Amino acid sequence: MDGYLPVGRGGGPDSGVFVFSCFTIRPASAGFSEVDNGMRLSRGFLPTLKENPAEAQVISHRLMLRAGLIRQTAAGIYAWLPAGWRVLQNIARIVREEQDAIGAQELLMPTVQSAELWKRSGRYDAYGPEMLRIQDRHERELLYGPTNEEMITDLFGQVVKSYRELPQVLYHIQWKFRDEVRPRFGVMRGREFLMKDAYSFDLDYASAVDSYRRMMLAYLRTFQRLGVRAIPMVADTGPIGGELSHEFLILAPTGESGVFFDGAFEEQDWLSDPVDIDDRESLDAFFTRMTSFYAATDEKHDEAAWADVPAERRREGRGIEVGHIFHFGRKYTESMDITVSGPDGAPLYPEMGSYGIGVSRLVAAIIEASHDDNGIIWPDSVAPFRAAILNLKTGDAACDAICEQVYAAAPESFLYDDRGERAGVKFADADLMGHPWQVIVGPRGAKEGKVELKRRADGARFELSVDDALARILGG
Amino acid sequence: MDGYLPVGRGGGPDSGVFVFSCFTIRPASAGFSEVDNGMRLSRGFLPTLKENPAEAQVISHRLMLRAGLIRQTAAGIYAWLPAGWRVLQNIARIVREEQDAIGAQELLMPTVQSAELWKRSGRYDAYGPEMLRIQDRHERELLYGPTNEEMITDLFGQVVKSYRELPQVLYHIQWKFRDEVRPRFGVMRGREFLMKDAYSFDLDYASAVDSYRRMMLAYLRTFQRLGVRAIPMVADTGPIGGELSHEFLILAPTGESGVFFDGAFEEQDWLSDPVDIDDRESLDAFFTRMTSFYAATDEKHDEAAWADVPAERRREGRGIEVGHIFHFGRKYTESMDITVSGPDGAPLYPEMGSYGIGVSRLVAAIIEASHDDNGIIWPDSVAPFRAAILNLKTGDAACDAICEQVYAAAPESFLYDDRGERAGVKFADADLMGHPWQVIVGPRGAKEGKVELKRRADGARFELSVDDALARILGG
Repeated sequence: MDGYLPVGRGGGPDSGVFVFSCFTIRPASAGFSEVDNGMRLSRGFLPTLKENPAEAQVISHRLMLRAGLIRQTAAGIYAWLPAGWRVLQNIARIVREEQDAIGAQELLMPTVQSAELWKRSGRYDAYGPEMLRIQDRHERELLYGPTNEEMITDLFGQVVKSYRELPQVLYHIQWKFRDEVRPRFGVMRGREFLMKDAYSFDLDYASAVDSYRRMMLAYLRTFQRLGVRAIPMVADTGPIGGELSHEFLILAPTGESGVFFDGAFEEQDWLSDPVDIDDRESLDAFFTRMTSFYAATDEKHDEAAWADVPAERRREGRGIEVGHIFHFGRKYTESMDITVSGPDGAPLYPEMGSYGIGVSRLVAAIIEASHDDNGIIWPDSVAPFRAAILNLKTGDAACDAICEQVYAAAPESFLYDDRGERAGVKFADADLMGHPWQVIVGPRGAKEGKVELKRRADGARFELSVDDALARILGG
Repeated sequence: MDGYLPVGRGGGPDSGVFVFSCFTIRPASAGFSEVDNGMRLSRGFLPTLKENPAEAQVISHRLMLRAGLIRQTAAGIYAWLPAGWRVLQNIARIVREEQDAIGAQELLMPTVQSAELWKRSGRYDAYGPEMLRIQDRHERELLYGPTNEEMITDLFGQVVKSYRELPQVLYHIQWKFRDEVRPRFGVMRGREFLMKDAYSFDLDYASAVDSYRRMMLAYLRTFQRLGVRAIPMVADTGPIGGELSHEFLILAPTGESGVFFDGAFEEQDWLSDPVDIDDRESLDAFFTRMTSFYAATDEKHDEAAWADVPAERRREGRGIEVGHIFHFGRKYTESMDITVSGPDGAPLYPEMGSYGIGVSRLVAAIIEASHDDNGIIWPDSVAPFRAAILNLKTGDAACDAICEQVYAAAPESFLYDDRGERAGVKFADADLMGHPWQVIVGPRGAKEGKVELKRRADGARFELSVDDALARILGG
């Protein structure tokens, strides 16, 4: 393929023949939710279901199917329909921004991995039947990655040669596959799932602890922005030992684990917490404060320590694991023999940690934590649409005009229910889909230029002019 | 898992116990390239190579390895390092925006598919060894999707019931796998690759033609915004026949196909072309004009028609296929028996088309079309960084101060080369990586508050104040 023409004549300024000028570039649009167009429900690929699907055992699975977020395409494997895809993207964007904020660098590793890589670490045989093993046409052993410690360690070794380039924190948001024996609960325990996994490389243990604490802060901020509260709980570290493993559990009554924690957690605002992530003392103070609050799953619950928590601050509930951070030292750098040259020139094995967030699982976990009998209650930051416009009388000139006016103000923010359905159907679907706001447009109000604004979270209703309603919805 | 507590107590307003208020939400950041932080080269995961890697036969593969965009992790499978990932995201964003602009709806289908789906269409046996076939732990037949006609047709059938909901255009941007017997040329012919595939569903042939023409316009706009020119060429339609299949080829001397086309293509500005995509006559006029220009690959070249093109407008070259659009009628709706109810209530098989863009292939194709002997020349719209800041004397107070000042103005736009390397190394790496601009900061100019600005595309140099340089780089 190469060699048709001399190298260096590829259309650059010297190549003569095929130079096309760059025409006007459209202004780059903003983030995902703003890039996407809004939707008219009459034409959108947004199927809602009235009945509870028989196959769904947990509330989030039921609501995700009923609200048209997902459809199963094979056991434990789901297609994300437009509304579900928007939620997934909103979550991924927030995860990404908080990873970037602590200096983690995003890259993307492939889904299919070579078995060779896993033989080097010794995990190929150790990993059980949950690993989806694949043979290609040449009978080479491949696998669909369930995680990426081996691959990132290998890439790190190819790129980073000196201790001067440390620390490095690398992450990607990529689909993984775990061949669960009994996939269930929808995307809560699916087989193909989206995960953010980050990996840190540090010169020594003290620096690795800093990386771990920075990541913990990023996680607290991430979950807070997602509109849920995830409590970090000390987790088992396995054979490596040490104190540096935490699970993050979202509180939801249907959670798999019982949790006990200090209500002081609820008072913390991590987004305005003035931690200096470049300062070890500041990180240490943050970590000390954070771990001073009691928090434990039932497996690790300590009645004596619990008794020390003031009674009015004791919180009990259940939780769903949505994140796990883990320091594991030199396990992979040693087993795969990856070194950097140290200050004295001698090779050193970097200290590593890995840090996961279950992005697709979070969609279900947020729903478990935030719904009522009528459907989903999306936190603002992850909602697929900011508001639904409910036209209670399509064909009525005043209603249609006001609906179009609201929609045109910010099409990317609205789902316009322009179907010729009864008002009751529209109310039910809007509640089910869980938009933070509903703009209810009926013929009486429309004549006076008024709409009714309903807030999904608490059902509060406001009669407002179109402008005031828009300001309320789009303003904050 | 469900049933620990009554349904409906999931943290919504009625649940009492675990309601956490949403704290201040950080303002949503803008698109990907602006979300990402900038980078300091001393700490970035951005490895450049001086030497041409022996395994790379084509220039784009060489430059992608040398500029640190990708690393191979298995035959025909690549990891995208931070700079490459940024390019891929920039391309995907533009593709997405132009799909959205014609009313296509984004969703996401999974990578792993059930063989059952392909048996229904009859393609499971027909598809050769390029399909990566997988057995799960229960010995069920799965495969890594090479394309999604079957799955989208099945989803469409689950969701759309009436002709009133047509047309529908659905797309996703997802990783695919084709088990090439001899993967080569880097991501140009890799095995795991990123593709945008869209699918249209229409009630009748005339409406399907409209969908096809809208998509053609979206493609022309997409490629123009990517800073390359892709010429549509009539392609074989296979056994179905008809005129409705076009390939889009990017012109590059190393292309796999010879191409002949009318230079009038170069004059068209599709972004300001006033096509009304909701009006059949306007679409028809656009299509007639577009197809009136001669364009053919060598396989389809017609010397008689070519002779009719005015001599001064005849262009010959080579091209790389980066897109393919295809109308195939009822092939899948009939074989999979997917209908909607028509105006008279009787079931109808919708007409379909499919529309692909090779997103990861485009990274290589753009490089083939835009480079010189020194490296890549990124079009503005896809460049991983808008500019490199070259500090020619790190440690010099004036140089360091000016570099930091430039960097702080828009960290997301800059790669700051703060390494303690010789000037020659920094110049070479900046040319290799292909940033549209280089901000060259040396001690003499720095004392006077001046920088040298170099434009990569033509090598033009400007001595400017910091403010003027920033205005030039960030302004347009």
